[in-house]
Amino acid sequence: MEELLKFAPRPTGAGEMFQMLRDGQPRTRADLASITGQARSTIAARIDLLMSAGLVAPAGEASSTGGRPPTTFAFRPGARVVLAVDLGATHARLAVTDLASTVLAEIEAPLAIADGPDVVLAWVAEQGDKLLETAGRKRDELVSVGVGLPGPVEHSTGRPINPPIMPAWDDVDVPGILRRHFGTAVLVDNDVNIMALGEHRTAWPEVTDMLFVKVATGIGSGIIADGELRRGAQGAAGDIGHIAVPHAPDVPCRCGNVGCLEAVASGQAVAAALRDAGLEAETSADVVALVRAGDVAASRAVRQAGRDIGSVLAACVSLLNPSIIVVGGIVADAGEHLIAGIREVVYQRSLPLATQHLRIVTSHTRARAGVLGASAMAIDHVLSPAAIDALIT
Amino acid sequence: MEELLKFAPRPTGAGEMFQMLRDGQPRTRADLASITGQARSTIAARIDLLMSAGLVAPAGEASSTGGRPPTTFAFRPGARVVLAVDLGATHARLAVTDLASTVLAEIEAPLAIADGPDVVLAWVAEQGDKLLETAGRKRDELVSVGVGLPGPVEHSTGRPINPPIMPAWDDVDVPGILRRHFGTAVLVDNDVNIMALGEHRTAWPEVTDMLFVKVATGIGSGIIADGELRRGAQGAAGDIGHIAVPHAPDVPCRCGNVGCLEAVASGQAVAAALRDAGLEAETSADVVALVRAGDVAASRAVRQAGRDIGSVLAACVSLLNPSIIVVGGIVADAGEHLIAGIREVVYQRSLPLATQHLRIVTSHTRARAGVLGASAMAIDHVLSPAAIDALIT
Repeated sequence: MEELLKFAPRPTGAGEMFQMLRDGQPRTRADLASITGQARSTIAARIDLLMSAGLVAPAGEASSTGGRPPTTFAFRPGARVVLAVDLGATHARLAVTDLASTVLAEIEAPLAIADGPDVVLAWVAEQGDKLLETAGRKRDELVSVGVGLPGPVEHSTGRPINPPIMPAWDDVDVPGILRRHFGTAVLVDNDVNIMALGEHRTAWPEVTDMLFVKVATGIGSGIIADGELRRGAQGAAGDIGHIAVPHAPDVPCRCGNVGCLEAVASGQAVAAALRDAGLEAETSADVVALVRAGDVAASRAVRQAGRDIGSVLAACVSLLNPSIIVVGGIVADAGEHLIAGIREVVYQRSLPLATQHLRIVTSHTRARAGVLGASAMAIDHVLSPAAIDALIT
Repeated sequence: MEELLKFAPRPTGAGEMFQMLRDGQPRTRADLASITGQARSTIAARIDLLMSAGLVAPAGEASSTGGRPPTTFAFRPGARVVLAVDLGATHARLAVTDLASTVLAEIEAPLAIADGPDVVLAWVAEQGDKLLETAGRKRDELVSVGVGLPGPVEHSTGRPINPPIMPAWDDVDVPGILRRHFGTAVLVDNDVNIMALGEHRTAWPEVTDMLFVKVATGIGSGIIADGELRRGAQGAAGDIGHIAVPHAPDVPCRCGNVGCLEAVASGQAVAAALRDAGLEAETSADVVALVRAGDVAASRAVRQAGRDIGSVLAACVSLLNPSIIVVGGIVADAGEHLIAGIREVVYQRSLPLATQHLRIVTSHTRARAGVLGASAMAIDHVLSPAAIDALIT
């Protein structure tokens, strides 16, 4: 280890300094020297490296107390682009964004994840190329790809692990396949984690402890603690769909247990209950449509689903003490019924200390949460100090 | 902000470099220059600063390929000491440790936290002074104090918030009071968090995701995620005692709800159930004594408590995906019954992905977990890069 370290390339320090510019604020060389404690000459050399890579550009002049006003420098998010891919069970959304996650071009299309990795990843490659063209960017401006998949993913390798609704994807080297096409780093995570990341970065960047809950065909969550997404030991953190609902009926679940949250309160479960009551509801979208059309039985069923979800979230609140719970996924589009049910039980079942400042809200980024998170994950990877150093040397 | 930063003292970089030496491995100046990418002269100056503060000392000679062998330098944990204080409801443990958490002197004594902060903190001050003397260390060698309290603590201020079993402590400035006596920084956290930290640093430093569960008069937990203790938005994370046990009887809990884990499965709850069955059991210790004496009813009650705790931990496993659950607290001393009950339900109720590599074990540090964690918390504070820079300049 010691020996290896001796031969590792020396960091230029430019990557580290660049982190201070990621907030978009223009700064002078003197500002950066003060903040970092480095010599002016060192700072100047680093700025030059970052400018030659296009990542930083002059941003105007600072006010001066006399003499020639010093130049300010700022991060240039448009210098490169990333491809963000959000694959669901039955639909997909792709976006090309700049390095500040601003969407430059975007498509949404139906897609069957069950068609398997060959078909789906070939489609992603083709659509990704087209989207780059639409955005007017070249392939060599693409620096990374972020992908969300609707199943458990081992984050370190980017491979799906026993994904229930996409068995053909088990242990497939998704990053390797897409890297061969795009020639860039490819980061993969499960869809709820990237939704949590997208919602956090976009709508609640100042919140340190957040729980994002997706209520759709299934139910899952993503955990932000101390400002970062937490994935757990195998990348399975947040998998709340199979937690037992206290006092729930013994509904059998596809996982083999009974009374799981997903079996009781998912869009699928609510649709099934409504069918039993004689209504036409095949999917989560049908449930949402019924609620929006004012159907009382559907509204009551969604509110009860909210209560059941709330009874599990009450436990999550006790364990994690988040300051905000954000509810997303298609069932959240059914208006206030879902969230009202969740609030009812969470505030009743949790300790006052954990709920005194707790907000429970619907997602701000909604259907875009996934691509925004995939973009953020891809950007974080290429703008890390080590990655910047590698890029510019 | 920009203006303020201009006038902040420049970091010497010595604090940052020192972090590499905290692992105790001796390194040469050339090693450190390679790792940091800094010039040899810069490294030499930083080593000199750290040596003058006594934090680093020559540790021998490295092997050489010819010529005079270079000197290695290593962290000197004995350079300073910290005071670690673990206050429970009815007992206390104090230790003076070096900067590697090696215990130099230690006492354990009965103590009633309900006597209030004036009495208790005066006792801590007196005992702390005596213990420093016992360890043969001077007051000015003490660099910080770490304290664990048996109730919720706002970590940023170190003040207890509505602590149920110690109402007189609500919002008391514990750090301020002890700082006035000891003249050093004082860090305060709740007892389960410091136990989690102590167990993690001592027994499982390589584990990134761990859940520590204390089963005693009450039940609580501490969360390690991505290698760090996570405290949540108000410092209340890990408070699992009031999560509803699925399918539990509606036992009333002191929190006002029914069926809470603490009301069903704590040492207190088990003792009450045994009294109802005609046994003599007032405290958790009595329960442990009965089990150890081979009482069948007590063993069965502890095993059932384990199952109830397991049903809540199954939800925690789904949410956090830890690779290890460590069970501590006095009831864990009742042998394998508690943990057998926990394992039974956790492995049955969780998804295979979350449990395939999950271990469930009893605490290695046992009664010392708290002081070891308080020591680690106090040390982390004074050995941070900024703190080291402040110390040596």
